[in-house]
Amino acid sequence: MDIEDTLLMIPGPVKVAPRVLRAMSRPMISHRSGEFGAIYSDCAGLLKQFFETKNDVVIMTGSGTVGMDAAVGSVIGKDDKIVTITNGKFGERFTEIGERYGKAVPVNFEWGTPFDLEKIEAALEQGAKAVAMVHNETSVGLTNPAKEVGKLARKHDAVFIVDGISSIGGNEFQTDDWNVDIAITGSQKALAVPPGLAVVSVSPRAEERFLAKSAGYYADLKAHLKSARKSPAQTPFTPAVPLFFALQEALHMASEEGFAARRARTAKQAESVRMAAKALGIELFPKVDELSHYSNTVTAMKMPEGVTDDKLRGGMKKQGVIVSGGQEKLKGKIFRIGTMGVCSSGDILRTIQTLELVLAKEGRLSARGAGVEAADKVLGA
Amino acid sequence: MDIEDTLLMIPGPVKVAPRVLRAMSRPMISHRSGEFGAIYSDCAGLLKQFFETKNDVVIMTGSGTVGMDAAVGSVIGKDDKIVTITNGKFGERFTEIGERYGKAVPVNFEWGTPFDLEKIEAALEQGAKAVAMVHNETSVGLTNPAKEVGKLARKHDAVFIVDGISSIGGNEFQTDDWNVDIAITGSQKALAVPPGLAVVSVSPRAEERFLAKSAGYYADLKAHLKSARKSPAQTPFTPAVPLFFALQEALHMASEEGFAARRARTAKQAESVRMAAKALGIELFPKVDELSHYSNTVTAMKMPEGVTDDKLRGGMKKQGVIVSGGQEKLKGKIFRIGTMGVCSSGDILRTIQTLELVLAKEGRLSARGAGVEAADKVLGA
Repeated sequence: MDIEDTLLMIPGPVKVAPRVLRAMSRPMISHRSGEFGAIYSDCAGLLKQFFETKNDVVIMTGSGTVGMDAAVGSVIGKDDKIVTITNGKFGERFTEIGERYGKAVPVNFEWGTPFDLEKIEAALEQGAKAVAMVHNETSVGLTNPAKEVGKLARKHDAVFIVDGISSIGGNEFQTDDWNVDIAITGSQKALAVPPGLAVVSVSPRAEERFLAKSAGYYADLKAHLKSARKSPAQTPFTPAVPLFFALQEALHMASEEGFAARRARTAKQAESVRMAAKALGIELFPKVDELSHYSNTVTAMKMPEGVTDDKLRGGMKKQGVIVSGGQEKLKGKIFRIGTMGVCSSGDILRTIQTLELVLAKEGRLSARGAGVEAADKVLGA
Repeated sequence: MDIEDTLLMIPGPVKVAPRVLRAMSRPMISHRSGEFGAIYSDCAGLLKQFFETKNDVVIMTGSGTVGMDAAVGSVIGKDDKIVTITNGKFGERFTEIGERYGKAVPVNFEWGTPFDLEKIEAALEQGAKAVAMVHNETSVGLTNPAKEVGKLARKHDAVFIVDGISSIGGNEFQTDDWNVDIAITGSQKALAVPPGLAVVSVSPRAEERFLAKSAGYYADLKAHLKSARKSPAQTPFTPAVPLFFALQEALHMASEEGFAARRARTAKQAESVRMAAKALGIELFPKVDELSHYSNTVTAMKMPEGVTDDKLRGGMKKQGVIVSGGQEKLKGKIFRIGTMGVCSSGDILRTIQTLELVLAKEGRLSARGAGVEAADKVLGA
């Protein structure tokens, strides 16, 4: 098996379309040229549609984390409080970043369980300059109620920062309608670009509250906004030019499909994985309530009893299908299938069929083909 | 003219070899796989040879600046002093970063003029936790005496940070012999990879002096070292996978040529540009002394009298050859030709010939072909 000839079904980096890979391999151009500026501006315009926002967006070279880092570090100084809501690994990352620059006030929920809005409001009532949350907790496959937290943030006059890294473009995400002051995504998720770019939208309201000097030098939203507003548009530091080529091509692909159509397709695809899991007697990991829902970009499932991570994921990898395991405290307890970007029905069916093969080998499959049938029923609908 | 079908002769991003572009366009793989770890480790091993060091190296996703940011932010806290030596734009960047995290003590020299070691020592005598300098000032085409500053740093017990971004792999650069505690390079220079990766080497001596918490979250050398030492090697945050594919291929290309052979070729190529300039009556911009020398990776020349930046660079671009102008206070006063990485003799001759054409059009060429002849004489030797 060649690792580059496998089916990548992890929640990022996701499969990249051949035409995007080809665009990415163009010869270098100067990053200070009008040509680069035109690419930046074209991407920024399409990203605004992707984010459903009128706010400015900046494109930074780095992982999604550099966007989270820039968001918190541009707003939170030594004496500022930031409420960080956690129910998974990436929520905890906001707490770590908040502690690095100011005072984090974590509101913790068990990994994979819904937010309790009353607890969040109680924390905000103590006064905070910002509140940060993860919209789609990649680590547990749960989508959190950003709209409702956005209302609380506005009510308590806090800058609302949302990690939309594995969400924007896959799940519904309305930056402006939900009062999201700073929204972040990464290139390797629903955009279906290789990893290496973070995209950050900034509301005028957030910008007014920026620190005079942001905490970080590289991760400084003020510097990125200033450069992006130049004509031609620029970046403050040398950008990863090939990833901009790829981003532009991928945004055009998404735009051809239609941003809303892509979100609807992504939702249907995740539903097909959930139905397959149900048919195979595999339990979904996250708990949901009326405000949170199963993620449309990543499905987290409990490891079937008596099956080890090595047997399940190792067995699938041997068949050329790569899925993710649990992170940190969930290692060996769950497995995750990513379905976003340019994932196809065929990709999903092959994944479920491979899962069935592995379960059969472990004596954990009751009815052969039941998972594929259930998935196909949703996908064909 | 298609911008992707031009000859890129700027001091980074530089031309990328077709085989590196092809390697870069491979399908995505998981960044948490053993396969990615093997690529990271292979690159790190070759980079140690590139850096002439036994120190650990980490590969960060971001521009070279994220490496400078991480270096200073991992060592310099609020009350720490850092001596920053400047004779160009990138030296000034160290001052900005130093001021962001601690107390910068700038030792400023006019852009493009040599260091005065006595002034540097006088600053170090006041006590400083670190001293930072740029080895090859890309903005002015001058290579500064790192070895000598390294001796002063050691004598005064300061962590020695060197921006080797446009230098390492092109100019002579002996990380260990010169006592460089933290050396930084960027992928888009002598490595001839597209931009988007910073490489940083860290001595045990620097690591001992790391802050308990580095200033930045994303730009945190401690986190990068910790992940790089895992087996398989990892990155703390999702890496730009395609740029790692490209880096590995480019390092193998450089290793096939031989790192020392590449440096010797690069030196000869810069010499050929200087000789062409001389033959064309164009003055080199930087002033040199016995310790500093003309850069082997970028040649900065004064704009010929009566010729505007627009006529010179714009005219060359019309012929498909892209060279750089001056930055900030040097805008319109100088122009720069980069010659590093996989730049060929043919590339240089085409560049000089195009420069001659433009000069002729402006009535500033005395003897047609004199520049090409002078360059060829050096290149053919």
